[in-house]
Amino acid sequence: MLIRHSANPLLTPADVPPSVSGFEVVGVFNAGACLYQDEIILLLRVSERPRQASPDVVLAPHLADDGSLTVKRIPLDDPEWDTRDPRQVFHLVSGEAYLTSISHLRLARSQDGVQFRVEPRPWVAPQLPYERFGMEDARITRIGDTYYVNYTSVSPHGIATSLITTPDFDHIRREGMLFPPANRDVTLFPSLIRGEYVCYHRPMPGAFGRMSIWMATSPDLRHWGNHRVVLEQDAAGWSSGRVGGGAPPIWTERGWLSVYHAADRDDRYHLGAFLTAHEEPARIIARSDRAILAPQADYETAGFFSNVVFTCGVVVQGGVLRVYYGAADECIALAEVSLDDLLAALRWDAQTRL
Amino acid sequence: MLIRHSANPLLTPADVPPSVSGFEVVGVFNAGACLYQDEIILLLRVSERPRQASPDVVLAPHLADDGSLTVKRIPLDDPEWDTRDPRQVFHLVSGEAYLTSISHLRLARSQDGVQFRVEPRPWVAPQLPYERFGMEDARITRIGDTYYVNYTSVSPHGIATSLITTPDFDHIRREGMLFPPANRDVTLFPSLIRGEYVCYHRPMPGAFGRMSIWMATSPDLRHWGNHRVVLEQDAAGWSSGRVGGGAPPIWTERGWLSVYHAADRDDRYHLGAFLTAHEEPARIIARSDRAILAPQADYETAGFFSNVVFTCGVVVQGGVLRVYYGAADECIALAEVSLDDLLAALRWDAQTRL
Repeated sequence: MLIRHSANPLLTPADVPPSVSGFEVVGVFNAGACLYQDEIILLLRVSERPRQASPDVVLAPHLADDGSLTVKRIPLDDPEWDTRDPRQVFHLVSGEAYLTSISHLRLARSQDGVQFRVEPRPWVAPQLPYERFGMEDARITRIGDTYYVNYTSVSPHGIATSLITTPDFDHIRREGMLFPPANRDVTLFPSLIRGEYVCYHRPMPGAFGRMSIWMATSPDLRHWGNHRVVLEQDAAGWSSGRVGGGAPPIWTERGWLSVYHAADRDDRYHLGAFLTAHEEPARIIARSDRAILAPQADYETAGFFSNVVFTCGVVVQGGVLRVYYGAADECIALAEVSLDDLLAALRWDAQTRL
Repeated sequence: MLIRHSANPLLTPADVPPSVSGFEVVGVFNAGACLYQDEIILLLRVSERPRQASPDVVLAPHLADDGSLTVKRIPLDDPEWDTRDPRQVFHLVSGEAYLTSISHLRLARSQDGVQFRVEPRPWVAPQLPYERFGMEDARITRIGDTYYVNYTSVSPHGIATSLITTPDFDHIRREGMLFPPANRDVTLFPSLIRGEYVCYHRPMPGAFGRMSIWMATSPDLRHWGNHRVVLEQDAAGWSSGRVGGGAPPIWTERGWLSVYHAADRDDRYHLGAFLTAHEEPARIIARSDRAILAPQADYETAGFFSNVVFTCGVVVQGGVLRVYYGAADECIALAEVSLDDLLAALRWDAQTRL
């Protein structure tokens, strides 16, 4: 359904200087996106790790208790560590866990939405206790004159969602944690509904439970409640493993449009779309039966974590939906579709869930 | 530290009639407790399952999509199901999970706090979509003239915490979900602090993260935020596996007293106690170095899930802390200590965490 841009991938690790001497950038992906003044802004997730000294060791960069950047070295053949996932390692006895890279957020700007100028330094880098393993997957939502940037804050406490606000992408303020572990893929609505702030979120309930998209409401953007399930995984196919928020919802005349991600049971990540009622953001009124983007291009099927397309932000310009997405947890790409064509391709129905 | 009552166990499954014809009660445990009028009230967790027809089958009672009670039958030798945990089963391909019993809440009353009259029918039974696998582990907190009963609501969506209010334990109102999955062991404070409601909660972050006690605050008891870690597991010993809330905090002159649970890495559950500052409920000012109760009595070391002592409620009478606790996920017991003795036995310090 989506048409890949001919300039893909737009950004690769080679386009981004590392933020730490001796480190290399291994991924630039999963970017928040918005229009700001006359430009398109991306807040890139930039993942880094120490230049690999030995192929026999997994390096786990993170902030130590005192806040300093440090690297844990784990021999690949240590039987006490599960090192099968390229993204993370687990100690089999203590349950201790580390990521194999540390991410920060980096600003990039573009006039045409295709050629981006990447800032030489981080927009924000991990600093707080709940960011000790990194800051990932920014989503940008403008409400009034403020830009709300929620991001995944990872630490030994788990995977949480936290908030930064900025009026201009120059001055920033950390606003603390919105959702405690394990919860990510939060997408804020750009306006209040029935007097309340609204978001989708994606709890990660572990062994007992499902990876579904939930809704919550808030009187003040700080305290969240009224949790309910919006979209569950399917029994089979492209979304049978998990679903989760992608880009913040876009207002259309027909309803709120969300581009989200879904993985099958083989961890192949796709993009889908759904529409919810203007005044009932938990009620899905239309949905893509098939994925609107599946990992097929070579930069999507092979990379740091292969077979992934994953969006954190879209922009609408001249009736065209421009979907910025991370490919294979390694680079940034762009795919587009006319908003009318996308809405026409959805399956329309009306069902209410929990 | 705690002294077991000579009448222990106070209640066993034989004391509780099943709520469903053809079912048997397999556990009466983890009770919320409070003083109400001139009696001590317990809200018992009563777990039931169909009378076992065959030892070769695991029975998983739950509410079906249409709300009717149904039983899934899983052959013990089916290689697609992980049936090692007596409490739950997991499908190894789909990730589908079930409990092996279904719990409801049952009221019991006592003049002396030892001999309890158990109501013949449930106080509340599973009914809503997020209760399809049961209602567990009630905690009772009186704020003003209302009793707030939070409980664990389990469903295919995961393990969440929901709320019921009652003015008199006769009229009840379901107030919805407080914390989405996976989160349990919520304990509400009996008064506002600095103008906000306060609770402890225990996220279950799965493979990545730790089982710690967190604090949150709320303007209205419905929307929660300001999440921060209060108490983490220890590196070794009785609380090295996980910690979680027990009884709702008790006001003492020295600070807020919480009796909580902690498990070691062999899943042996203990009770501990900590004290937090009156105006800073995230700041621990004293803590029990050793467990104040460890599983040692025969009704604690052997049962539906062996080696468990677990509290959901305490009552203070005449300077004595009366701790009602579930033993081996099967029966209710009582252990007591003078409040002064307990506070004197804590290790006092002052450290602030995340």
